[in-house]
Amino acid sequence: MLNIDWKPDKKSCISMYRQIVNYIKEKIGNGEWTVGEKLPSQRELAEKFEVNRSTIVEALDELKADGLIEGKSKKGTRIINNTWSLMASMLPGSWEPYIKSGIHKPNLHTIQIINKMEYKDNIIRLGTGELSPELFPKDMMKKVFKTVSNNITSLSYEMAKGSLKLRKVISKYLKKFHINVSPDSILIVSGSLQALQLISMSILKPGSKILVEKPSYIKSLHVFDFSGVSFSGISMDADGIKLNEILKNIDRNTSLLYTIPTFHNPTGILMPQYRRNKLLDLCNKERIPIIEDDAYRELWLDEIPPYPIKAKDENGIVLYMGTTSKSMAAGIRIGWVVAPETVVERLGDVKMQTDYGASSISQYVTAEWIESGFYEIYLKELREKLKIRREIALNVLEKYFFNMASWNVPKGGFYIWLKLKNKIDMKKLFYKCCKNGILINPGYIYDFTKNYNIRISYSYASLYDLELGLKKLSQIIRSLSDNCYC
Amino acid sequence: MLNIDWKPDKKSCISMYRQIVNYIKEKIGNGEWTVGEKLPSQRELAEKFEVNRSTIVEALDELKADGLIEGKSKKGTRIINNTWSLMASMLPGSWEPYIKSGIHKPNLHTIQIINKMEYKDNIIRLGTGELSPELFPKDMMKKVFKTVSNNITSLSYEMAKGSLKLRKVISKYLKKFHINVSPDSILIVSGSLQALQLISMSILKPGSKILVEKPSYIKSLHVFDFSGVSFSGISMDADGIKLNEILKNIDRNTSLLYTIPTFHNPTGILMPQYRRNKLLDLCNKERIPIIEDDAYRELWLDEIPPYPIKAKDENGIVLYMGTTSKSMAAGIRIGWVVAPETVVERLGDVKMQTDYGASSISQYVTAEWIESGFYEIYLKELREKLKIRREIALNVLEKYFFNMASWNVPKGGFYIWLKLKNKIDMKKLFYKCCKNGILINPGYIYDFTKNYNIRISYSYASLYDLELGLKKLSQIIRSLSDNCYC
Repeated sequence: MLNIDWKPDKKSCISMYRQIVNYIKEKIGNGEWTVGEKLPSQRELAEKFEVNRSTIVEALDELKADGLIEGKSKKGTRIINNTWSLMASMLPGSWEPYIKSGIHKPNLHTIQIINKMEYKDNIIRLGTGELSPELFPKDMMKKVFKTVSNNITSLSYEMAKGSLKLRKVISKYLKKFHINVSPDSILIVSGSLQALQLISMSILKPGSKILVEKPSYIKSLHVFDFSGVSFSGISMDADGIKLNEILKNIDRNTSLLYTIPTFHNPTGILMPQYRRNKLLDLCNKERIPIIEDDAYRELWLDEIPPYPIKAKDENGIVLYMGTTSKSMAAGIRIGWVVAPETVVERLGDVKMQTDYGASSISQYVTAEWIESGFYEIYLKELREKLKIRREIALNVLEKYFFNMASWNVPKGGFYIWLKLKNKIDMKKLFYKCCKNGILINPGYIYDFTKNYNIRISYSYASLYDLELGLKKLSQIIRSLSDNCYC
Repeated sequence: MLNIDWKPDKKSCISMYRQIVNYIKEKIGNGEWTVGEKLPSQRELAEKFEVNRSTIVEALDELKADGLIEGKSKKGTRIINNTWSLMASMLPGSWEPYIKSGIHKPNLHTIQIINKMEYKDNIIRLGTGELSPELFPKDMMKKVFKTVSNNITSLSYEMAKGSLKLRKVISKYLKKFHINVSPDSILIVSGSLQALQLISMSILKPGSKILVEKPSYIKSLHVFDFSGVSFSGISMDADGIKLNEILKNIDRNTSLLYTIPTFHNPTGILMPQYRRNKLLDLCNKERIPIIEDDAYRELWLDEIPPYPIKAKDENGIVLYMGTTSKSMAAGIRIGWVVAPETVVERLGDVKMQTDYGASSISQYVTAEWIESGFYEIYLKELREKLKIRREIALNVLEKYFFNMASWNVPKGGFYIWLKLKNKIDMKKLFYKCCKNGILINPGYIYDFTKNYNIRISYSYASLYDLELGLKKLSQIIRSLSDNCYC
């Protein structure tokens, strides 16, 4: 029988039940009471400790929840663990319950792998939606840095909407696309992803539904999940999202439509002017605000694309998102949202509560980059280089994929949406590619239904790697097709 | 009686009910059916449209929800609004329902005002928790920029945990405080606020409770609210958070303890070594992980403070947060979290889904700033300048507040926690100060209970403004005290 020569202190500020829990934990923890031993009955404990039996029940419940004791009806309560082993399990492994908690879902497993593999050596990145380091305008950027560093007198927190200087520059820059807004209607963010997160947290009721293109980049994100917002996928034709499909999918909970009308991610589709007009009309009529994600606008290769939907938005129903992540450098982490002032204020207020605003340095660099005129000069060169990359990618596809896939010829942006003819196991393909040093973005991370697509990006890998990677990819696909009998 | 000479198209891809909704909307919208008119009965509509009555009910319900019609039991259904007026209300004002939605609360009204007032001209900022622009190390920073711009070859997305280079630098830097961790256990964030947001979203179950000092900076934030996490305020003595109060407040839902042991915000309290040891022991015993917010560590003025609690954390229960926002420049937006690797990975994964990581430029600048040795040189000078500012603030307080308030003498950090003797209306004080061009951080934004405190910061205003502002503040307090009869 365990020896108990202690009583809780009735005058202590610590509750009786907690004192008892601590006492028993200490006895177990310092090895005085060992695993396997039987505790006295509840009645006996209540007598020894001079407390109510309910206090004992509460204390034992906690010790049970902690995994220290176990009570089986007939056999009484036994010690099944000691504090030290539990303490030890507070080491990394035991953060387990915490890591599994939290309202934000983990990234899709495929994306987690992509995020890690990208930093391995000798990987050919065929899916990366980012400009190749070899396209980075080193010399121009050095000049921009010099000007910025000469002008910086301090680096304080910026206003909730972002640096006024950058907002003025963006306001002027947007006129190029016939978007006429004052700096007050512009919010600076750390890229489009953050813009989506702010929208998710700030202006959507749980239970809301967002209409999105099917497939869509946004499907690969969990940025709306934790707010209780879901997606409804709307199919596309060669001109983009289908309007009659939108009508079919509208219901009470529909609160937004998200679209990438210009060089859509992942399909590369460009929505022509007539479809933009009709989409805006429809959304006006149905009173569904639009999020227009215009990240790829500057990356046209054949001709200037139609103006943004926002350019014709007289009723302020379009939230317009722009960024330099795709057209300049992703690591700068700067984007902007154009919206009615009240919406910008709400988003800015939440932004201040999220990270106190984007890096001031990045804001100054972006302002100088655009204002200096370097951006325009650089874009002209960039388009020529991307055009060459697109040609090479298309030629290589023609060479190795002519009988095994079909694809679009994108008019801009980064992506070729490869559609495989054979129904192979796409996860298997992804892993086999990884093993062979090739990183692809399989279509299943973007789509709502099973598919056999791959998003090929001609923007990132070196020209040599692009050809080598696509050749290897075709071989891997062939090997999987041979085995699939489908 | 309204004229109906149309039927829904049964072959259309648009549902019957939606066609009817659109038809009626159009009739109302183009003015054919006007406000006040009575709709035919449900039975009559079903006959005219040749559909089931349930389809009519569905259509009318939607029109009601849209505010276009109103159905009173005996009087039938009437048109009460027209589409155009509702369309017009899609203009800024009508984002109202959206703006009021969203799971993230707006900032406290007082903080919203502070955020705006800070950018007005001729405002004396007595509460700002940030270094004065006149303390910014312009010349050193210019050199750092030059080195960084010479070394940048591209600006891509960084790894999920942040730039490896910066993590190596931080890993080395932390050894100074006896924290020995590898770069793998470090996560780069855009400041401590983002670290808290990631913790809030990633590792806490809704319903969890966080123990925090009373008062605490964290009380002024909504960063845990949207995850369904609440605070439990624990009172402090001159050595920081009270341990027996912690014990009293622990319950099943307690999942973390948040503390600022070094130059606490807002009270300035420094937790001595013995209390740190005991706090760590207690949390180990009770298995409550600690968030140690160490933003002010480098800003000691009298002597080097005790090592962080994290330095003695053998079980990996401390999540340690550091930043350069307070000790270098807030606009750089860089901070770090040190935690067991599994926790860092979970936080990093959510970070990648939140904003794709902090600005690469800011990460490079911070790495170079620390590595170059400029940081240490600058800190030595900064401490001397802050010491002078503290002295002046204390002298001015002695001069104008000696009979109206009491205060602490902080050993570091930015803050003097002024406790007013008279119970005046603190909101009134805040607004009256604003009117008179003085910005203060009233204690009520930090505390859990009614209080008469003001957080005075000696780090931001110019020395001239500091004296002038405090003098004016004393006058305003006196004028309010004279009227309060308390």
